[in-house]
Order: sequence, then C-alpha cells, then structure tokens
Amino acid sequence: MQQVSFYQEVFTSYLDGFTKKRQPESLYNPINYILQLGGKRLRPVLTLMSAEIFNGSYKAALNAALSIEMFHNFSLVHDDIMDDAPLRRGRETVHEKWDLNTGILSGDAMLILAYQLFETYDPNTFQALAKLFSKTALEVCEGQQFDVDFETRDDVSIPEYLKMIEYKTAVLVGAAMKMGAIVAGASEADQDIIYEFGRNLGIAFQLQDDYLDVFGNPETFGKQVGGDIIENKKTYLYLKAVEFAQPDKKTELLHLFSLTTTDHSEKIKTARQIFVSSGSAEATQKEIENYTNKAFLVLDNLQVPEHKKFELIAFGKELMSREV
Amino acid sequence: MQQVSFYQEVFTSYLDGFTKKRQPESLYNPINYILQLGGKRLRPVLTLMSAEIFNGSYKAALNAALSIEMFHNFSLVHDDIMDDAPLRRGRETVHEKWDLNTGILSGDAMLILAYQLFETYDPNTFQALAKLFSKTALEVCEGQQFDVDFETRDDVSIPEYLKMIEYKTAVLVGAAMKMGAIVAGASEADQDIIYEFGRNLGIAFQLQDDYLDVFGNPETFGKQVGGDIIENKKTYLYLKAVEFAQPDKKTELLHLFSLTTTDHSEKIKTARQIFVSSGSAEATQKEIENYTNKAFLVLDNLQVPEHKKFELIAFGKELMSREV
Repeated sequence: MQQVSFYQEVFTSYLDGFTKKRQPESLYNPINYILQLGGKRLRPVLTLMSAEIFNGSYKAALNAALSIEMFHNFSLVHDDIMDDAPLRRGRETVHEKWDLNTGILSGDAMLILAYQLFETYDPNTFQALAKLFSKTALEVCEGQQFDVDFETRDDVSIPEYLKMIEYKTAVLVGAAMKMGAIVAGASEADQDIIYEFGRNLGIAFQLQDDYLDVFGNPETFGKQVGGDIIENKKTYLYLKAVEFAQPDKKTELLHLFSLTTTDHSEKIKTARQIFVSSGSAEATQKEIENYTNKAFLVLDNLQVPEHKKFELIAFGKELMSREV
Repeated sequence: MQQVSFYQEVFTSYLDGFTKKRQPESLYNPINYILQLGGKRLRPVLTLMSAEIFNGSYKAALNAALSIEMFHNFSLVHDDIMDDAPLRRGRETVHEKWDLNTGILSGDAMLILAYQLFETYDPNTFQALAKLFSKTALEVCEGQQFDVDFETRDDVSIPEYLKMIEYKTAVLVGAAMKMGAIVAGASEADQDIIYEFGRNLGIAFQLQDDYLDVFGNPETFGKQVGGDIIENKKTYLYLKAVEFAQPDKKTELLHLFSLTTTDHSEKIKTARQIFVSSGSAEATQKEIENYTNKAFLVLDNLQVPEHKKFELIAFGKELMSREV
C-alpha cells in the first residue's frame, strides 16, 4: 500500500486522460468541467487503496475508482440543482454556469458513464460491480430524498437522521472500498468487512462534518462555519440538543430554528451555546468516536496481514483527526 | 409469435406486479404513478416479440422489457421538466404533481432501477444487456441535447435532424428488439439485424409523428394537431420546406416560425400550405417510406423462418399505417 498522496496523483492523472471529447459539446463540456473542479478525491483513492490491501493492482481498479468519482459528481450536479446552490468548490455550479436543463441532462449522462466504466471488466466482475453500484446509487437517492423530506418535518428521530446520512454519504464510501476488493478478487467475507469499515467510517466522517460546520476553524474550514445553523438544518447536533436541553432552552432552540433571521452571528452564537450546555456537542463527539471505533473493530476479522490493518487504522485516524 | 395485444396484456400485468413499495414513499410514489399512466407499451412489446422471433420465451425477456419501459419513463420525466410540460397522457407530469426536485430524483432512481432489472440474468447476458443499455441511454441523452441545441440554431441541416431523431427515439426501438434477441441467445449477426430493423422503423415512426402532427386527424391524433408549428419546431417538414420553397415562400415560412402569435389556426393553415406547395409534405412521405423499406430490407439476411419475417413486416406495416 502506498501513501494517500500517491493514489491521489495517480487518480488525478488518470482522470485528466479520460476527458470526453464527444458531440454534442453542450452535453460533455459541463461533465468535463465538474470533474475538473478538484476536491480530495477521497472515494476513488479508497478504491485504489482497497485493491492493494487485497493484493490487487491499483491499476486494475482505476476504472472502478473513476466510476465512483463520476457517480459522486453526478450526485453533486443534481443535488446542487435541488439545493439551488450557486457555488461548488468556490466555482459556479453546472446549472448556474449553464442552465437547469444542462444540469439535469449532464448529470443523467454521468450516471450512465459511471456504469460504462465497468465494461472493461470480465462479465463476473462487471456484474458484481454493477450490482453493488445500483444498490448503492439507489440508497444515495433515497438518502437525498430523506434529507429533502426532513426539511419540512419536525419529528425527525436520531435513528432516522443516522439512516439518512448513512444512505446519503456513508454507503458510497463503503462501496468505494468494496469495489477495490471485488477487482482484487477478495473473498466475499473480506468484501463485506471492508464495506462495513468504509460505511462506519463514512458515518463518523459525516457526523464530524456536522460538528465542524458548527465548531470548525473558520480560517481552515472549507465552507462557511455555522452554515447549517443559518439554514436551520436538523443535524445530529440539533436533534441531540432538542433531546437533551432543559425545557426553556429547548423552546429557545426550536424558536431559533424556525427563523430566517439576517443576524447570523448572534443566531450561531446562541445555537452553539445550547449545543454545548445541553451536552449535545459532547454526545456528538462520542458518537463520532463510536462509529470510528466500530470501523476499526470490524477489521479484526479481515484476512489480511496485520500491517495492512494497521495502515487502514492509521488512515482512518488521520481522516478523523482533521479540524477543518 | 403472438398478437401484439397478447404481449401488451402480459406486459401490463407484469408491470402491475412490479410496483415498488420501498421507503421513502416520496421517492417511489412518483415512479409508480408515471409507470401506471399507460401508453401503448410499444417498446417492451417489441422486446417480448423479438425474444420469440428467436425462439426464446417471452417470459425470460420480461425484465429486459420492463427495463426498457423504465428507461423510457425516466426520459419522459426528465424531458417533461426540460420542456416545462404540464401534462403527459392527459395527466399531470411528475414535476407538476409534486415538484422539480421530486422529478429529478425520481427520474434518477428510475435510471438506476432500469439497470437493476438486468440482475436476474446470468453474468454474460447481464453484461451484454447493460452494455447495450448504456450505449443507447447515452445516445438518447445526446439526442435530447441536440434537440435542445437546435431550438436556438437556425442552421440545422437535414442530416443533423435525422441524427437527432435517430438518437432521441430510434436507437431505443432498436435496442428494445436487440435485447429480446440477446435474452433468446440469437447470434450476434441476427442481433445486429434486428437492431437495424428497429432503428430504421424507429426513424420512420418519428418522421411519421412529425407528419401527423401537421396532417393528422384532429379527432383521433392524441396530441394537438399543429402543436409543432405553434412551437416553431424545426421538424423534417419544416427543414425540407425551407430547402424546397421558392424565395418568397421561404421568407414567409422563416418569418412565420419566428413568431409567437396567438392566432394559431391561421399560422397552422399557412405553414401547412407551404409544406404542401413546396413539395416538403411529399418528400417527407417518401422519406418515411424509405426508412420503412430499409427496415424491411435488412430482414433479408435474418436467419429465421420466412413466416417470422412476414410477421415482422406485417407488424411494421400496421405500425406505419396509423393515421392517428
């Protein structure tokens, strides 16, 4: 297994070579644009890494990794339309730069291209990859729909919220790793274990994202700190605070999250205080730790040498130690 | 081979049994809604019919047929958003009945479900079906994008228009028939021939749709006769008229198609006259005949008994004899 930066470089140069030069340009230019917006390329890196954990070659896993990245970018394009987001990674979103129709249609084409990338594999591998992909992609759609539905509901439970982030975010992390295992010809038991590792780490990662959105360092956090509070998002922090807070504080929080105020800094400050005083911030930290530990624990039964498990744990620890 | 009505009934009852009862309902209700809106189910019927042409069982082809119908409905849902269409088969479109986000996300899920339907086939068949499906689906997206692009272009050529309708409509007809052949285990040569039969018949069918939109019987044509003229659509009839018409008539036509007048009946009447007097109507009829004959001619090399070819030709003739 190589350094993360190695897989990042390898993947980026593979992605650069992929650029679609097909007609009509109005369909493919937006695809090339969003794919080149950058990002950490975390998911495809996990696919390459996972292939090598199971003694496969990362090269054989490049198309599966690209498929995962293609799907991830498809979901960004369509989600940005649904969220009416003007910016993505500091640049215009596809539907802003072009228009709604281009956003819908380019997204559709990316979903199809993601499947096409499996065609270089033999029929058995192809079917295993495509089956996992369809199951995962459908769950991501369901997660996105739960997220949309939650906006207009005031009775979202913690288990429901956890299922939403699991579907919307974590299953794709699990699938990215399982695809590496499939390409490398790992046993089904090992495929399932690495999927569980990725899924649990993915949930921890998303919970941490919620946490950093409120308590992250404004100078290094990629997004606006407090963004979720401004948008009245019912995150884990919010739901736990509603559960834990004293009646008066709970009332205050519910009221605060019913407003579309313009005084953001005061709102963020108050919400933050209630998140801390209610014990929600601590409970969230603990839940992040729980899921991270679950991810590490499932590795016990993995049939690979100990030093490889050690590397996976080191990777997980580094990922979860980010403060930005 | 059975009657078309037999395959229609068989398919409809299979579709009824498929209804997705998964969470969240807000994602799956729109899918069940659009699938139940009806229609002639032409494409899935062709898949079942094709399977039996090649001595396969229509039952084995049901999931492939449903995949084709699922994809067709996915494209309707997303196209209706792009065309801002309020009605589909006389009922509210998905994005009208629910909202834009539901239309996008339900469509996405249908595209994934279309792939999932191939999972019941063995790995080799699965790969053959999924490869054909991806190629076709991408072409349909490209055709839709060409169609969108053409709206703002005034230099669309006849070959470009033919390519657009081939991609947007005809390749799916070809693919529907080829899938039946794949499931039945037909030779690759026969698979390609039946694809060409469907593709050519699909082009003829779409050209006829353009023709009937202008010259169809208002009492039996499903849509508003003259709809394409009202919307200034650059159809084959229009493009041929621009090519053939005398300078003064050409100027009149170009002017007419730059207007968004409210006096529809006068506009339709004038356009219709130019389509006839320029010779465009006749040329369109001839082109429909050409593509229909091409479809019949490719059957010469098909390795099936003559009576089966005869049935395919009878089906094609009936399809192209519609006046509604």
